[in-house]
Amino acid sequence: MFERIALIGIGLIGSSIAHDVRRLRLAAEITGYARSEATRSKAHELGLVDRVYPTAAEAVSGADLVMLCSPVGTYGDLAREIAAALRPGAILSDVGSVKGAVVRDVAPHVPAGVHFIPGHPIAGTEQSGPEAGFPGLFANRWCILTPLADAEPAAVERLAAFWRACGSNVDTMTPEHHDLVLAITSHLPHLIAYNIVSTAADLEEVTSSEVIKYSAGGFRDFTRIAASDPTMWRDVFLNNKEAVLEMLGRFSEDLSALQRAIRWGDGETLFNIFNRSRQIRRGIIAAGQDTAAPDFGRGQPNTGLNKPAGDR
Amino acid sequence: MFERIALIGIGLIGSSIAHDVRRLRLAAEITGYARSEATRSKAHELGLVDRVYPTAAEAVSGADLVMLCSPVGTYGDLAREIAAALRPGAILSDVGSVKGAVVRDVAPHVPAGVHFIPGHPIAGTEQSGPEAGFPGLFANRWCILTPLADAEPAAVERLAAFWRACGSNVDTMTPEHHDLVLAITSHLPHLIAYNIVSTAADLEEVTSSEVIKYSAGGFRDFTRIAASDPTMWRDVFLNNKEAVLEMLGRFSEDLSALQRAIRWGDGETLFNIFNRSRQIRRGIIAAGQDTAAPDFGRGQPNTGLNKPAGDR
Repeated sequence: MFERIALIGIGLIGSSIAHDVRRLRLAAEITGYARSEATRSKAHELGLVDRVYPTAAEAVSGADLVMLCSPVGTYGDLAREIAAALRPGAILSDVGSVKGAVVRDVAPHVPAGVHFIPGHPIAGTEQSGPEAGFPGLFANRWCILTPLADAEPAAVERLAAFWRACGSNVDTMTPEHHDLVLAITSHLPHLIAYNIVSTAADLEEVTSSEVIKYSAGGFRDFTRIAASDPTMWRDVFLNNKEAVLEMLGRFSEDLSALQRAIRWGDGETLFNIFNRSRQIRRGIIAAGQDTAAPDFGRGQPNTGLNKPAGDR
Repeated sequence: MFERIALIGIGLIGSSIAHDVRRLRLAAEITGYARSEATRSKAHELGLVDRVYPTAAEAVSGADLVMLCSPVGTYGDLAREIAAALRPGAILSDVGSVKGAVVRDVAPHVPAGVHFIPGHPIAGTEQSGPEAGFPGLFANRWCILTPLADAEPAAVERLAAFWRACGSNVDTMTPEHHDLVLAITSHLPHLIAYNIVSTAADLEEVTSSEVIKYSAGGFRDFTRIAASDPTMWRDVFLNNKEAVLEMLGRFSEDLSALQRAIRWGDGETLFNIFNRSRQIRRGIIAAGQDTAAPDFGRGQPNTGLNKPAGDR
């Protein structure tokens, strides 16, 4: 499908792309760049890349698909650095969780003849680094492309075909709409998860040891996404400010209404809000975006014995 | 261990107790009460109980362990109803998620000679009803007992032994401390989960279909606990008002600080808060309270192929 894919950044997402490219033979060759020597060595040792370079410009040289897979805060500098080394006709894409800021930071550096098509696979785990990736991460997940108005349809289709080969469904939308959608489906959930873990850590009357022991009451669910890469998430929030603040404002308003219902003992309001949530859960399961198994299928799903349990 | 256990309410928790009592032979006989005829039939059909009654007073008659397993808002009326039918020397306990209000509502009705020992197994799933229970739900989970000052140590130990037989670790504490601990480890997480699902459902610019499609970015994690039983959770919030409002106040303060950091582009504050969360996650995994598998081990853990993925 491609001659040479260059991965700029080899963490969870970059390494998962490498696994799929190998497994599905989507390119003849993979080159890579990572900022740290440790990551470069590990990527080489794991066979994720054929050649790994200490500069991004070297890594992209000759590649017909370049994927930016580092935290989005690094994209501007990287784009400036690689611009002159990009091969005419190459596709330059990325996997960043925000899209408006990526267009803002990258587009000005892209030379004529290079197809810049921002993208975002909605997939991942809470783990980070080159060892965290695995084949099939993108299967049955959505990948959103946000091509600019003047993008060449054939290049967009070529990139879409790459993601479909990895098992993804592909949607296209504007960067602005992407950032709004992801603000509610991803950014706000992460912010809230980080926040409640932080609130719990600061308590005086309840010890950290108690929070840990009794976390099966629901808290532990939040700690998973709050264990995600802090650099990546810092960059997300710095680069999707407006949409996140908008969603956060709505969330806080709604939370104040719940708070008021609790204070005034308004059970009917509480029940009505709680009662409609099951519908969305059912929709997510029906759409194949989560497991139907109780408690995410934690533990041994077939016996139920010694199954770690959920919430009370 | 007991001659006859009476389950007052046969939902997720009541039915899971029944499974363990059968499997581990913790009682010679199980009687049950459920408000609805449908639940009574189902409990009988599933073999969860030996005899099921349409009134709680009949169900507790002759039992040496009575477990209240219905939503905590029903306990006061139930206690009044069963008081005269309780066998002298019996243990009366419960599985409610709040403890102060349970003492307030139940204790006044308990006749002399009956051992009232409130309890709370920190276990469950997002599923409800008599079919949701399974053997082993309580294994490796904590069960908190909140005996009153005048409780008989032998009776407390007998109840503790019952929970240990189910595989639980048993702690004792005051009802007040329980309610504070659970407010942060369980009640606030559920409230926040319900709230973000509600916020998402009310958006105009982002459709429900988009929220569902792209939920693997993190949102789907919240929908699981927001699919929990609305009646049970209404009663929790109505009956642990002070502690929940206290934790909610802290959460909102902390969230305002994060909001401010986002608005002013303060990446260092964001990074520092995000960076300390991994420690608590590690503690939870080390304590055996969650799986170490990425993404809660969703999907096929061994191949990684077609594995539903997590967050971005």
